[in-house]
Amino acid sequence: MIGIKSIASYVPTAGLDNYVQGAKFGKDEAFMFGKIGASFLPRKAAEQETSDLCVEAARALFANNPELDPQAIDVLIVVTQNGDEEGLPHTAAIVQDKLGLSTRVAAFDVSLGCSGYVYGLYAIKGFMQAAGLKNGLLITADPYSKIVDPEDRNTTMLFGDAATATWMGENAVWQLGEARFGTDGSGAEHLKVSDGTFFMNGRQVFNFALVKVPAHLHELLEASGLQSADIDAFCIHQGSAAIVDAVARRFEEQHPEKFVKDMLETGNTVSSSVPLLLQKHMLDSSWKRVAISGFGVGLSWGSAILYRD
Amino acid sequence: MIGIKSIASYVPTAGLDNYVQGAKFGKDEAFMFGKIGASFLPRKAAEQETSDLCVEAARALFANNPELDPQAIDVLIVVTQNGDEEGLPHTAAIVQDKLGLSTRVAAFDVSLGCSGYVYGLYAIKGFMQAAGLKNGLLITADPYSKIVDPEDRNTTMLFGDAATATWMGENAVWQLGEARFGTDGSGAEHLKVSDGTFFMNGRQVFNFALVKVPAHLHELLEASGLQSADIDAFCIHQGSAAIVDAVARRFEEQHPEKFVKDMLETGNTVSSSVPLLLQKHMLDSSWKRVAISGFGVGLSWGSAILYRD
Repeated sequence: MIGIKSIASYVPTAGLDNYVQGAKFGKDEAFMFGKIGASFLPRKAAEQETSDLCVEAARALFANNPELDPQAIDVLIVVTQNGDEEGLPHTAAIVQDKLGLSTRVAAFDVSLGCSGYVYGLYAIKGFMQAAGLKNGLLITADPYSKIVDPEDRNTTMLFGDAATATWMGENAVWQLGEARFGTDGSGAEHLKVSDGTFFMNGRQVFNFALVKVPAHLHELLEASGLQSADIDAFCIHQGSAAIVDAVARRFEEQHPEKFVKDMLETGNTVSSSVPLLLQKHMLDSSWKRVAISGFGVGLSWGSAILYRD
Repeated sequence: MIGIKSIASYVPTAGLDNYVQGAKFGKDEAFMFGKIGASFLPRKAAEQETSDLCVEAARALFANNPELDPQAIDVLIVVTQNGDEEGLPHTAAIVQDKLGLSTRVAAFDVSLGCSGYVYGLYAIKGFMQAAGLKNGLLITADPYSKIVDPEDRNTTMLFGDAATATWMGENAVWQLGEARFGTDGSGAEHLKVSDGTFFMNGRQVFNFALVKVPAHLHELLEASGLQSADIDAFCIHQGSAAIVDAVARRFEEQHPEKFVKDMLETGNTVSSSVPLLLQKHMLDSSWKRVAISGFGVGLSWGSAILYRD
């Protein structure tokens, strides 16, 4: 079965000291650590385009997996809502060219935000199965530094730039299990770009996540015939330290520590946050079963079980 | 198997008399008919957003298929590069809300241009199979009137606004067969938006299509173990009358009439052109096997066989 064979990432080394930024808005280090969750926010260079972040992540993936011939990639999906160009062409086409991939690759962008990796996994696996393809590259790259107003205290302390690349193929250790998805466009206004600037109604988004995500995870477990105890770790979108903690507490009071929290050096990296967690914590673990969940722009959410035999 | 159960469309009744527009650029009716291929270009109203076109097409689909409960839709993909908002949120979330679909729907946009319907078919079928979903809505809506400069003679005579909605599900008459895809981002500059305005290098795009599409169709047939004589009709992207004619001649000199040409009242409707042809010419036909091909922005192309038993 087609599953996750490898994950790599690119996190810019340059960025903002978020404690310094917090101080500017009157926030102390305890708040920045405990509520925001990020002491550092990586920032792409001004001359780096979204496709360049994709290319860096893909090159890291190729370097880690010498058995993967880049010319064998036959499908490339880029999950982004901040691509290189103004709508067209799609960023995936630019990445195909910059990586020197075969022109026989099926390449397209999926427009989703923080829920995007969960959807992207099923989109690329499904596309590969439906079209008879063998090696997929699922890339996430949504550099919010392009759209966040550095004077907006509701957003500028939260988001970091990053990209990830996931190799999907046969004989993978990690398989995709049951999944559940959801969309509520009536909340679209809570997370949107207007006149080039990102706006977030933080309270509404926090409440949405706190109500929706624990219930969605419970529903997913029930549909999978699993108990919470069967899950070794919950790798959910790292929106902020406060939201991860609140979802963990609401979901299950006994073992909130199973909700992985690791965003101190990255911040909220949108659709890259879940694959960053999986790369760092799942791939080399002894875990057997992991629940993932992404939630955000749309509003949109998706949760899934990853497992190995 | 999941296949195409129904296709509906929305074509605005208002629009431009393209003969009048042609005269403005010194083009006579013979040229507009024979080379451009459109005497009329439908135009959405200024207050209509992309999501509104999607909603109209979906409502037409629901009206034609009373057995389809809109609440049973569990996945919605919008193929567009001219969505409602500036990158985020995705248009599919807005359509979910405007149509009053269940919040249990998986909704996302696929960013592709004229090749988008071919990719979209395999993306939605694959996603449904990978995630265990039952009723999919594949919508195309890419209103180029948002980005075309009415003074640009290379583009303003070509594009019409339209939207289509395809119901994907089990027990479908039309099934998806073999497919082939391709991407060449080195040609991205030939079709792109800069500062809000669409630019096309018509000569480069024409040459690309003329070289690529006939060869791609031959490759698809070979991979499918089919001869040209096994195909009842070729429904390829209606870029212009000239490109459809040129591809048809180059592909097979004996029966160029099997290349359906029907764009006189619509113009080039981007990702809607192939489903418009299928709706009008395939669904009620006695055809057994149809080849489809889309090509354009990216550069990107995709070709597939649709068949029924």
